[in-house]
Amino acid sequence: MKKLYFLFTVSCFCINSIISQKSADDQYQVAFLIMDGVYNTELTAPFDIFQHTIFRDSIKSMNTFLIAKDMDIVTSFEGIRILPDYSYKKEYPKIDILVVPSAEHHLDTDLDDEEMIEFVRNTAKDAQYVTSHCDGAFVLAKAGLLDGHASTTFPSDIQKYKEMFPNLEVISDVLFVHDGKYITSAGGAKSFEASLYLAEVLYGKKIADRLAKGLVIDWNLDNVAHKVID
Amino acid sequence: MKKLYFLFTVSCFCINSIISQKSADDQYQVAFLIMDGVYNTELTAPFDIFQHTIFRDSIKSMNTFLIAKDMDIVTSFEGIRILPDYSYKKEYPKIDILVVPSAEHHLDTDLDDEEMIEFVRNTAKDAQYVTSHCDGAFVLAKAGLLDGHASTTFPSDIQKYKEMFPNLEVISDVLFVHDGKYITSAGGAKSFEASLYLAEVLYGKKIADRLAKGLVIDWNLDNVAHKVID
Repeated sequence: MKKLYFLFTVSCFCINSIISQKSADDQYQVAFLIMDGVYNTELTAPFDIFQHTIFRDSIKSMNTFLIAKDMDIVTSFEGIRILPDYSYKKEYPKIDILVVPSAEHHLDTDLDDEEMIEFVRNTAKDAQYVTSHCDGAFVLAKAGLLDGHASTTFPSDIQKYKEMFPNLEVISDVLFVHDGKYITSAGGAKSFEASLYLAEVLYGKKIADRLAKGLVIDWNLDNVAHKVID
Repeated sequence: MKKLYFLFTVSCFCINSIISQKSADDQYQVAFLIMDGVYNTELTAPFDIFQHTIFRDSIKSMNTFLIAKDMDIVTSFEGIRILPDYSYKKEYPKIDILVVPSAEHHLDTDLDDEEMIEFVRNTAKDAQYVTSHCDGAFVLAKAGLLDGHASTTFPSDIQKYKEMFPNLEVISDVLFVHDGKYITSAGGAKSFEASLYLAEVLYGKKIADRLAKGLVIDWNLDNVAHKVID
């Protein structure tokens, strides 16, 4: 009898595991590229909007994770020490959505990091969406991803962006631009808006509204200055 | 001649070090209380507003740091792994401003953590300000700090807050409440507003405006629903 009960318990446990564990295909794999000097808000705003999708039923939710060059501690611009989940020099999940939050040296030394730029370029090939926040657009531009696509960046860096990438179509005075698979955001606290927009594109307005409410945001795309290129 | 040049160089370096290094008294010491389940946004929004004060000249800026029970890795609610800067069981700076971001179990098991509650209660005695975001108010209330003070919490948890602490004066439909040394915020993305408010109280509107601009926030206290108890 004990043995039967044990088998029954184990079976239930296994069935529950199967039900509760989502396979890779059941979720979007969403990678956040971090490095020393990453800005907290530009990392956590999209991370939170996307991670909270796992609490919404009946959608293909997002598995969010941090990817860096190495597995060393990453220190944010503001001084918070963070552990990456994966190194892009080793094995990591196939990335459906790549998020490039801004970092302190996205206008200078980071752009000389060929290994990092190559990772972004290669990942973008098969990704469904690539998003940047604040100066993250400089990384996408350097990787050549924004050639032929409209984009935006941190308001105070628009001029520098135009000077560094004179061939790009740059849109100012908007919170984000969506062109093809690329969504570039002004960043800062407005990184929430760009992320809610992608949530609305993928899941519809009702889910986006719920995600917004969980973070005390009044969400209405009609009230957000943005540009979608058809 | 070489020796003289060396001495001159060393002297300049030392003088520069003295000028650039701020002593503990030159800065507000701002502790963020973290634990497993801490919500990213409620941690990073106030952290960023306060940490960015170091880039503003001629003010008593803020030295921001993370404090936890132990020095173990803290995993946020959304799954980001963070390293604390101090353990409150060991030595740490004298705290001028304590920030209690929300965490997953602030409505249940965290409130049974007597050591944590005692740390909050003791720190509040000598602190100039104690702020909470989202459900962080439950921790302040449990520590007895909000007795006789008006407060608020995460909108969806207002009812539970009133039930658990029936003697408190609870204000709903505002983004934050300031009463005495306590500032309690609705949390989520609105944690920026409560933090900008404290920046404006300490440094004036011009500095608060600059901090807001750095995070792409249109800041105007007049447009923010809040309550200040005189």
